Amino acid sequence: MTPYLIISEIKKLLGGVDGWLDKAVAYATAKKFDPNTLLTARLAPDMFPLARQIQATCDQAKYAAARVAGKEVPAHADTELTIDELRKRVASVLEFLGTFTAKDFEGTDERSVTTPRWDGKSLTATNYLLEHAMPNFFFHLMATYSILRHNGVDVGKKDFLGALSWRQ
Amino acid sequence: MTPYLIISEIKKLLGGVDGWLDKAVAYATAKKFDPNTLLTARLAPDMFPLARQIQATCDQAKYAAARVAGKEVPAHADTELTIDELRKRVASVLEFLGTFTAKDFEGTDERSVTTPRWDGKSLTATNYLLEHAMPNFFFHLMATYSILRHNGVDVGKKDFLGALSWRQ
Repeated sequence: MTPYLIISEIKKLLGGVDGWLDKAVAYATAKKFDPNTLLTARLAPDMFPLARQIQATCDQAKYAAARVAGKEVPAHADTELTIDELRKRVASVLEFLGTFTAKDFEGTDERSVTTPRWDGKSLTATNYLLEHAMPNFFFHLMATYSILRHNGVDVGKKDFLGALSWRQ
Repeated sequence: MTPYLIISEIKKLLGGVDGWLDKAVAYATAKKFDPNTLLTARLAPDMFPLARQIQATCDQAKYAAARVAGKEVPAHADTELTIDELRKRVASVLEFLGTFTAKDFEGTDERSVTTPRWDGKSLTATNYLLEHAMPNFFFHLMATYSILRHNGVDVGKKDFLGALSWRQ
């Protein structure tokens, strides 16, 4: 179990969001409403709406890969207003994650990670991935899934988990 | 990043649920309703209610530790009807997770894991943890959190992440 394996799993799970959005569009089409209406839906008034949950899922994925590998985090402007634009955001982060190799994630027990919000405190890159980036990624990924499901979109556990690496 | 570290993180996150239930009880008391009312709340009619989400979170945690280590999975009867009973379920799984050491998780790339639902197929223990147990744990953990939040309980991201291992 290497950090690279975890980043690869995050990449697979983020890729699944594209299929969830297919189902959201199909559901909206069948029900004759604009699928972008879903983007303002929230689970609670003080939680992010769907659009921001998808942006945050993308952000946690790119933070995980870039910070754990000690590379620069690419900027995204958070200007997406449609499902099509959010799909491009997802695709952009998937492409970024695809540029990493196992070698990029060596030495994570020694490397330090900090963020602008941490007042100079830091975690090892290993602990950043384990205790912060990964749980945060799942938090926003599952919030995305739950908002869709709560609004009637036909996503299920298999759409969440994606394909499994069965032994031959 | 070892399987043991991931199991330790799962243990920490599961332990956080106890604090969420404190907040749920405080909220119910302030609003003068029976906190156990929350246990039947769902995010969608075809999703598990809160009680079953907590049971499933506990189950994924015990499956992760036991199956990845190649040990027997302790049985739980899923009979909890109150928050107090669910707290005991959480405590029981935390105690079980506390019995494992790093040594229990050696050889996970060679060990096979299967479940009764998989028609004889199997994953390596590493891939079972990475692709199945861990995402499933987060799925039910975050569904638990979301049901509480959706119903007005004052849980936040810090309650979800728990304490971080800051570098000294």
